[in-house]
Amino acid sequence: MEDVLSAALPQAAIAPRRLHQAMRYAVLGGGKRIRPLLAFAAGELAGAGPDRIAVVAAAVELIHAYSLVHDDLPCMDDDVLRRGKPTCHVEYDEATALLAGDGLQTLAFQLLTERPLSDDPAVQLEMVKLLAVASGSRGMAGGQAIDLDSVGKPLSLPELEFMHIHKTGALIRASVQLGALCGQGLGEGEMERLLHFAKCIGLAFQVVDDILDAESTTATLGKTAGKDADANKPTYVTIMGASAARAFAAELHADALTALQPFGARAERLRQIADFVVKREF
Amino acid sequence: MEDVLSAALPQAAIAPRRLHQAMRYAVLGGGKRIRPLLAFAAGELAGAGPDRIAVVAAAVELIHAYSLVHDDLPCMDDDVLRRGKPTCHVEYDEATALLAGDGLQTLAFQLLTERPLSDDPAVQLEMVKLLAVASGSRGMAGGQAIDLDSVGKPLSLPELEFMHIHKTGALIRASVQLGALCGQGLGEGEMERLLHFAKCIGLAFQVVDDILDAESTTATLGKTAGKDADANKPTYVTIMGASAARAFAAELHADALTALQPFGARAERLRQIADFVVKREF
Repeated sequence: MEDVLSAALPQAAIAPRRLHQAMRYAVLGGGKRIRPLLAFAAGELAGAGPDRIAVVAAAVELIHAYSLVHDDLPCMDDDVLRRGKPTCHVEYDEATALLAGDGLQTLAFQLLTERPLSDDPAVQLEMVKLLAVASGSRGMAGGQAIDLDSVGKPLSLPELEFMHIHKTGALIRASVQLGALCGQGLGEGEMERLLHFAKCIGLAFQVVDDILDAESTTATLGKTAGKDADANKPTYVTIMGASAARAFAAELHADALTALQPFGARAERLRQIADFVVKREF
Repeated sequence: MEDVLSAALPQAAIAPRRLHQAMRYAVLGGGKRIRPLLAFAAGELAGAGPDRIAVVAAAVELIHAYSLVHDDLPCMDDDVLRRGKPTCHVEYDEATALLAGDGLQTLAFQLLTERPLSDDPAVQLEMVKLLAVASGSRGMAGGQAIDLDSVGKPLSLPELEFMHIHKTGALIRASVQLGALCGQGLGEGEMERLLHFAKCIGLAFQVVDDILDAESTTATLGKTAGKDADANKPTYVTIMGASAARAFAAELHADALTALQPFGARAERLRQIADFVVKREF
């Protein structure tokens, strides 16, 4: 995945160099790559070739990276540490980070158009649309806006879930769906089950994130710990308490595994990812 | 065009409302709509139907609007007035403006996937790619990075041209090309001539912008006049002088009209746009 991303990004020596260096800095050398892992696991399940899956995996990771660069800016979360390194605007400057995020978003869409990802170009157009809907104002960017608006407000649990289903859930579902669309092997109802799996795993990821944010150190996380509580942001831990949050994560994990059950051995990698999402310590 | 853009944008009542209001604010009720005009004129020349052209015209205008919202942010040009109104981050806030720009970019790509724009889906994928390349780090966003880097530096004329060919030229060329690709009526060498026309008009637009910035009032322009000189940015006026800049604009105008000559009456609208670009006073 690192090689795929490195090849997809403009080389650092190509003008404008500072912009391209910042784009590479924001994407390479860090991150859990959960979305690419999901795309690969869902793609393999659907009988897709790795070369095609790699492209959609890179596209969703570029969208994710762009969102992190913009989220970390001073006018948003104002964070200085990401993936154990200074954030993009700290390493470069705010204007360069803004443009790097912009350029990463554009590059994600460009990637989806550069080579065949489906034998049917109409399906490939659907894939571009799917990524756009998932990352736009009614998907990821919309979730970010809801998040901003929630600071200092007493959110209910359904409101918190609504925010996360947009902010992180939409792109996680898109990762699974795009990976699967690279193949042709899905049977009746299988995409729906994969999407239910993705929804559960996306939420579980967020619940675990909130638990880790509350209970871990900055050194372990590679990003600023305790940030949400300091910012007076509602989290699963502040709303439910740590113990109930852990139980909720376990419930989502079980629900995700149930959705995979009919796939048998074809879903083994997706099960491993589900385990990692819930049991991870960073 | 206003109706098309309004229908393409999420309604202001749809959540997240503040984000969608900001997106609509940034796009509607202002702007010269040069890029949509070019898309329509080139599309008509190529025999395209107005419904298809309207979609690509909206997409390029959304990309343009997103770039203005981000360019106006405090970490970039820090401007408070745009199209005679407070800039998006002044009317809303910086975080909302950042996300509104992000969402407008995504929406542009989404628009290009929602309905048939060519009878061949493979051509439509090419259109998505073309918009991505024109607006990304080796197109518009890259030009913006070069612009940032040029503040306070003594640019040569070729360096200034290189910056503008990216910052505004790439999207203007894409507007013409995307409009024409909606049709099927282009003969041998006709796209090349259209692109040469677009290149001349894009540069002429910028030269005239620099002249207007130096010689007009803020009230006439609807944006802050004298901004470039104050920011110590190189312009055609500061490098060539006003008189030579006017001669250069006239030369580009003539060159653009020569490129259209073989089209005869089919290019009448493109000629009118060329005249407007050079003779405008705002």
